[in-house]
Amino acid sequence: MTSSMFEKRLREAQVVVEARLDVLISRAAGGPPRFVESLRHAVLGGGKRFRPFLVLETARLCGAAEDAALDVAAALECVHCYSLVHDDLPAMDNDETRRGRPTVWKAFDDWTAILAGDALLTLAFEILADVEGVAPRTQVALVRELAQAAGAAGMVGGQAFDLHADKRGEPAVADLAHIRMLQAMKTGALIRFAARAGALLAERSPTELAALTAYGEQLGFAFQISDDLLDATGDASAVGKAVGKDAAAGKATLVSLMGLDAARQKLDEVEAAAIVALAPFGSAADVLCEAASFVARRSS
Amino acid sequence: MTSSMFEKRLREAQVVVEARLDVLISRAAGGPPRFVESLRHAVLGGGKRFRPFLVLETARLCGAAEDAALDVAAALECVHCYSLVHDDLPAMDNDETRRGRPTVWKAFDDWTAILAGDALLTLAFEILADVEGVAPRTQVALVRELAQAAGAAGMVGGQAFDLHADKRGEPAVADLAHIRMLQAMKTGALIRFAARAGALLAERSPTELAALTAYGEQLGFAFQISDDLLDATGDASAVGKAVGKDAAAGKATLVSLMGLDAARQKLDEVEAAAIVALAPFGSAADVLCEAASFVARRSS
Repeated sequence: MTSSMFEKRLREAQVVVEARLDVLISRAAGGPPRFVESLRHAVLGGGKRFRPFLVLETARLCGAAEDAALDVAAALECVHCYSLVHDDLPAMDNDETRRGRPTVWKAFDDWTAILAGDALLTLAFEILADVEGVAPRTQVALVRELAQAAGAAGMVGGQAFDLHADKRGEPAVADLAHIRMLQAMKTGALIRFAARAGALLAERSPTELAALTAYGEQLGFAFQISDDLLDATGDASAVGKAVGKDAAAGKATLVSLMGLDAARQKLDEVEAAAIVALAPFGSAADVLCEAASFVARRSS
Repeated sequence: MTSSMFEKRLREAQVVVEARLDVLISRAAGGPPRFVESLRHAVLGGGKRFRPFLVLETARLCGAAEDAALDVAAALECVHCYSLVHDDLPAMDNDETRRGRPTVWKAFDDWTAILAGDALLTLAFEILADVEGVAPRTQVALVRELAQAAGAAGMVGGQAFDLHADKRGEPAVADLAHIRMLQAMKTGALIRFAARAGALLAERSPTELAALTAYGEQLGFAFQISDDLLDATGDASAVGKAVGKDAAAGKATLVSLMGLDAARQKLDEVEAAAIVALAPFGSAADVLCEAASFVARRSS
């Protein structure tokens, strides 16, 4: 699969996911109109929809029902979007721009952004409870795994580690193992969930689930290295958000700890490891292999 | 059942719920130690545990397994506690005291409080996914109902209506129907869930579920009237948080719209309606009847 074929496929998924999110948000909305508008601003503002794409592609690979996969993809994207809305708050990362548009707190206000994030996180689980054509035990497994990936032992805990270093005035922990753990929690856990979701939906074997898990973990690692590289070397207009923040804040990142060249080399290795993990699926996993290369290319 | 017997039972439930929350928080915790401490501060700070108590009592009435009911009670309490942590934030209600102790943002900081709330909301769904001895379809129903009660069409939407009136400098809506809707979303939805939870767990008949739903709705209404009465007439040390805020803010409440006497009379009527709703259960529902009287008495 060529990179342009891959990117066409990613764009097609964006359209499908955006349309489904629109339906799900409209159905679940409540509160004053301005609040509903903030939910739509938070979720329907574009974005690569990379996590939902992974859910759709692992579901296709595993033979899961498309409609169910689309809802799981949408639930995951609600969690991702809520985390961006809260992370952007002045009390957290204080970001004013996201995907080239004002962040939710900037376009509305802080309290609206806090509540919009809360509503989106809650909606994710409502969506999982409403997925049709799936055994209830599978829905329960998806709820459990998404909650674990998103909660204190996953994404939120990773963000807490990150902000703890930033805000408490303590020296950046110059320890690669700590940064890896933090990033595996903060960014990796949702990507790992995305990679597992298709196998969970299709109730595939433990071996296949393990292969997709390994893939998801490597992909999450690649994602984080390329994010750190983009922050160190990218330009804001291409990235769609502020860059150079890590260095300005004296923050320990993979790039600051390893240096640019070693980080780039590591990214190549991790991309290769992600692709190797998919070997059991043969050429059926071509799209997911290309996804790993796509992530690695982002920062080049 | 006498009121002192009832209060003894409520205190016994507090101990059991607190112990279970302690176990569940410890098991799910992640992030830096200070963050874990904030989760414990948010959840283990006492409180009446009235919502969990309702879950335990409706479960007992309906013959549901005690262990499962305790976990559902704990999940609900996590949602309640998260909502307090976020509502207390400077960007929202700006409260410094809760249950006679500093609020989470005051004891820690804003970003910790935002993340702690996020983690607790997420944990609630993880707990529901891990409830043992219950059919997966029942777990899915509980996830769906808790998400609906807590989300944009429930608690969060109600809070958005409330803050929209407070913060946007728009005149308070002097309309009883609007206040009733807002309160049914903001406070009522979780209490309604608590009243339904036992029947859902025990897979009782639609008739029994409907009776407990009607009870829960009246109880939620009673809770809100007594809350408004407490804010208008209570003293801060007894209530454990700031009072008189509604009047100071020129906020429309049931009391400001109806007057004190009419609000007190309405509270009596609603208490009676809650008790009538339980008639199908006969004397087995004595504890829940007393719970309605307990709520009504709070503000007298």
